[in-house]
Amino acid sequence: MKLPDAARDLIGAGANATLVTLNEDGSPQVSLVWVALRSDGDDDELVCGHFGEHRKVRNVRRDGRVALTVVSAENDGLMQHYLSVAGTARIEEGGAPELLAELAATLAPDSGFPPADAPPGWLTRIRVDRIGGIGPWFD
Amino acid sequence: MKLPDAARDLIGAGANATLVTLNEDGSPQVSLVWVALRSDGDDDELVCGHFGEHRKVRNVRRDGRVALTVVSAENDGLMQHYLSVAGTARIEEGGAPELLAELAATLAPDSGFPPADAPPGWLTRIRVDRIGGIGPWFD
Repeated sequence: MKLPDAARDLIGAGANATLVTLNEDGSPQVSLVWVALRSDGDDDELVCGHFGEHRKVRNVRRDGRVALTVVSAENDGLMQHYLSVAGTARIEEGGAPELLAELAATLAPDSGFPPADAPPGWLTRIRVDRIGGIGPWFD
Repeated sequence: MKLPDAARDLIGAGANATLVTLNEDGSPQVSLVWVALRSDGDDDELVCGHFGEHRKVRNVRRDGRVALTVVSAENDGLMQHYLSVAGTARIEEGGAPELLAELAATLAPDSGFPPADAPPGWLTRIRVDRIGGIGPWFD
């Protein structure tokens, strides 16, 4: 599916997100990642990059069911606004230096990351299946 | 297990957290909640309250395996610091008005929440089994 415009604006040129994957025993594993928005025909994808073959990468290879949240700086007077996404992920070889350089320009501009000799790494590409949360992207 | 002091400080008198539960088909479900820290003998618990019998409540009744993240305002120059917790949760009847009034005093002091006629609701009590993330609570 396509994300509503308000959700696209929240992600903008890159955002911090919690990414939930499933361990081999079915328990949830969660970490904080940077995500970028990509459009692929009729579907939106959220993409993150990794230089290490982390547990989340191995988890997605085994079971592509993921969930993701992006928290907004806005609130409704009570709760923070946030976008939640249920998605289906796949791992792609390579592409991490380019994606992470693009995201670092927004999220960590003075970091010197990624290094010039960074390995190709992996991308996690997440097709958006369903959204929820609190905010203008969800009724 | 007990949380390290730096993790206790991060949660303080209440914090926003993402709570991950497992749906009936094993897929992950995630929402933003308020959490409080409670100590129970040798274990720390993270506790959240609900007035509605939300999907997360029904999920925990069926499968207590949860994960939770609390994001810090600090960063290491590249990534936000965050605490991740793998835990085992159980649902307790009642107690939501008292817990949510306590948390609202920290997290939404001008909200008038919860209302005086709030129902007893439910608590989700999460025993901390393992921690991770990026920050002084985790090497």
